[in-house]
Amino acid sequence: MPAELLTIGSELLSGATVNTNAAYLARRLGEVGVACRRQVAVADAPDAVGGALRDALSRAEIVLTTGGLGPTFDDVTMDIIAQVTHRPLALAPMAAAAVRRFYTKRHRRLQQAALRQAYLPSGGTALPNPLGTAPGLWLPLEVGRLLIALPGVPAEMRAIMERSVLPRLRRRNGRTAIESRTLRTIGIVELSIEAILRRLRVPRTIDIGLYPHLRMVDVRLTAAASSAREARRCLEPVERRLRRALGAAVYGAGEDTLEEIVGARLLERHRTIGVAESCTGGLVTDRLTNVPGSSRYVRGAIVAYANEVKWRVLGVPRTLLARHGAVSAPVARAMAQGARRALDADLGVALTGIAGPSGGSADKPVGLVFIGFSDGRRTISQRLQLLGNRTAIKTQAAQAALNVIRLQLIGRGGSRLGRRRSVRQD
Amino acid sequence: MPAELLTIGSELLSGATVNTNAAYLARRLGEVGVACRRQVAVADAPDAVGGALRDALSRAEIVLTTGGLGPTFDDVTMDIIAQVTHRPLALAPMAAAAVRRFYTKRHRRLQQAALRQAYLPSGGTALPNPLGTAPGLWLPLEVGRLLIALPGVPAEMRAIMERSVLPRLRRRNGRTAIESRTLRTIGIVELSIEAILRRLRVPRTIDIGLYPHLRMVDVRLTAAASSAREARRCLEPVERRLRRALGAAVYGAGEDTLEEIVGARLLERHRTIGVAESCTGGLVTDRLTNVPGSSRYVRGAIVAYANEVKWRVLGVPRTLLARHGAVSAPVARAMAQGARRALDADLGVALTGIAGPSGGSADKPVGLVFIGFSDGRRTISQRLQLLGNRTAIKTQAAQAALNVIRLQLIGRGGSRLGRRRSVRQD
Repeated sequence: MPAELLTIGSELLSGATVNTNAAYLARRLGEVGVACRRQVAVADAPDAVGGALRDALSRAEIVLTTGGLGPTFDDVTMDIIAQVTHRPLALAPMAAAAVRRFYTKRHRRLQQAALRQAYLPSGGTALPNPLGTAPGLWLPLEVGRLLIALPGVPAEMRAIMERSVLPRLRRRNGRTAIESRTLRTIGIVELSIEAILRRLRVPRTIDIGLYPHLRMVDVRLTAAASSAREARRCLEPVERRLRRALGAAVYGAGEDTLEEIVGARLLERHRTIGVAESCTGGLVTDRLTNVPGSSRYVRGAIVAYANEVKWRVLGVPRTLLARHGAVSAPVARAMAQGARRALDADLGVALTGIAGPSGGSADKPVGLVFIGFSDGRRTISQRLQLLGNRTAIKTQAAQAALNVIRLQLIGRGGSRLGRRRSVRQD
Repeated sequence: MPAELLTIGSELLSGATVNTNAAYLARRLGEVGVACRRQVAVADAPDAVGGALRDALSRAEIVLTTGGLGPTFDDVTMDIIAQVTHRPLALAPMAAAAVRRFYTKRHRRLQQAALRQAYLPSGGTALPNPLGTAPGLWLPLEVGRLLIALPGVPAEMRAIMERSVLPRLRRRNGRTAIESRTLRTIGIVELSIEAILRRLRVPRTIDIGLYPHLRMVDVRLTAAASSAREARRCLEPVERRLRRALGAAVYGAGEDTLEEIVGARLLERHRTIGVAESCTGGLVTDRLTNVPGSSRYVRGAIVAYANEVKWRVLGVPRTLLARHGAVSAPVARAMAQGARRALDADLGVALTGIAGPSGGSADKPVGLVFIGFSDGRRTISQRLQLLGNRTAIKTQAAQAALNVIRLQLIGRGGSRLGRRRSVRQD
């Protein structure tokens, strides 16, 4: 089913806001077999919205709009949809009740303008908005076409997508049920995943999508069949074989983040963690603590940017720093041990490296990073050579360190992945 | 001058990549008086690109494309531009020489396919790409229209924009010169800035744009006149009055970041900084160390997530923790002093708060954050009540802490901004 996205909002056209809705919508629509062919952004101006909406409806089977559903005068989307589709606006009682409830719950007086949001084009269904007052719209049109309108606020848009739009699109597919699985991987490059997929001879009925981003690749499998059960039966053996082939490179599924998975493993095993960061400057711990409830397993971190902090706070022997330099495997290991000790944590992880743009040498180039890990019994280190600018190197180093914690916790620290990057034990 | 953006790339349509280029381009084009009316994203498919390009050229005076300029078979942009504009491709000798130089410098053998990138539609000018092999294209068309094609890689696209496209667009304006200034502010809300602007009675010849994002607002002033000098003469008095009215809320101009400004102030005053973070989990130090060369003034940080780390490593008196709780002004102040001491830094800044979603109480709700600052002579604290989800609270708290450092360094710590948030001294 070819679809087009129409995002409406002057803040997009002025460049004040980055359009993150478009990528999210394209990804989620893909999971139910809807292929996004074009994304268009226009300002809130009625002419611009009208022209773009007519164009989109002339080409696509499904048109999904975001934005312009609020109560203010520059929210024109519903008016324009009514005009373009020749379906007059009418009060949708359920939507009006929801707007009233929203105000009552917050002890605020209902403003008459707010009820504008409850007027929908005739023939349309209001999609409840659990986070705001503007409902979404599901409007079937002639010759099997469909128009969907959602608010522009990302959280509201996502809530209506998950609760109403995706389930309805699945049902609408009628005899074809679409199921999909996303495996999230780290430490394996796109080309290697492609080789594995070729070797596995994935049946043609399964659509494969690869989504690479800085040393991580998401692999999405999508199957269409006459029933959801049939689609799952088609998908599951392939998913199993792919998981086996990818091994420990798979860190999660769906919308899992690496830091959530690391947190879940730490909780399971009742382990706390302390971090010693140099080149990443706090980024590893920032990501670990983005997970709600992370105070149960994150003890803290020492960001040892200056060398003195490495020996004064982390207790790295000065002889080690003098002999090997701050960016070295022995110092990474000593920092990991120091983090455990100074922060009184079960596990210590450490990073030291050269984020650039300056500070590199022929011997130790920009992008060289050592990761240390200690659990008290053994202490290991890894050497990485990363590419990219300063923030790309910091991001990749942080992800690699989170992955070291994960692999050690699942007992795969000496795995294929680790060996390839020359894990050393002492 | 109305313009349309056409971003080309299958990764945008699948949702694998968020389209950050569009916002950047819209913002920079606005600075030279080019108003972006529509943004369209299509896949690399020749039909899709051709259709979208024809549509855009039928509506806009300037069409700017990004993506599809590389050497591989799915890079179709130049071919399609040649077809749609009826201008056959021809080898551009300067562009070919640049491609050859790129390979020679990297000691790599020139692949014949790479030379594809040096073929441009006749009548077009190659815009040098300092970071890659694919040049940009500047192609004047009939009736004053203009087509610009840039690579999709953000760094390359930006480099060509700054070096070639923006200066050329300024010149192209001919008798109307456009000048703009962006003032970046923190700690003042959009509504207050609007009130100030009304009070200043900004002349109508100056266009004003406000770009708010999490407690920071960029204010852009744009003037058009018969010469650049005239435009600046129109702009400068307004900029001066606005700067005076906004006072210390203005932290920078143009593309300055808050962390760059804090770094520049620290360097100027030969001061080093140490950070103690609790609720922000390392984010403040991550941002400080995103600035190249920050190792000259960042000593490091203690992320004291667990209470024990607050007294063991930072030396916060246990009685203070017991009496006031970890999230309190006295603890923030003691943490700032502890950061100075433990990290041997001239200045110490500290954050302690409740990032949520759990951990709040009626007394100390989610979003309550205390910032401490110490320069050895005096130690102060600020209380903030922030709104939003966990990452929004972390981000706002980090920005506020960076701003405290800045205000203290410029001697404005006891300013309007500070007082409003109840600075306490001890």
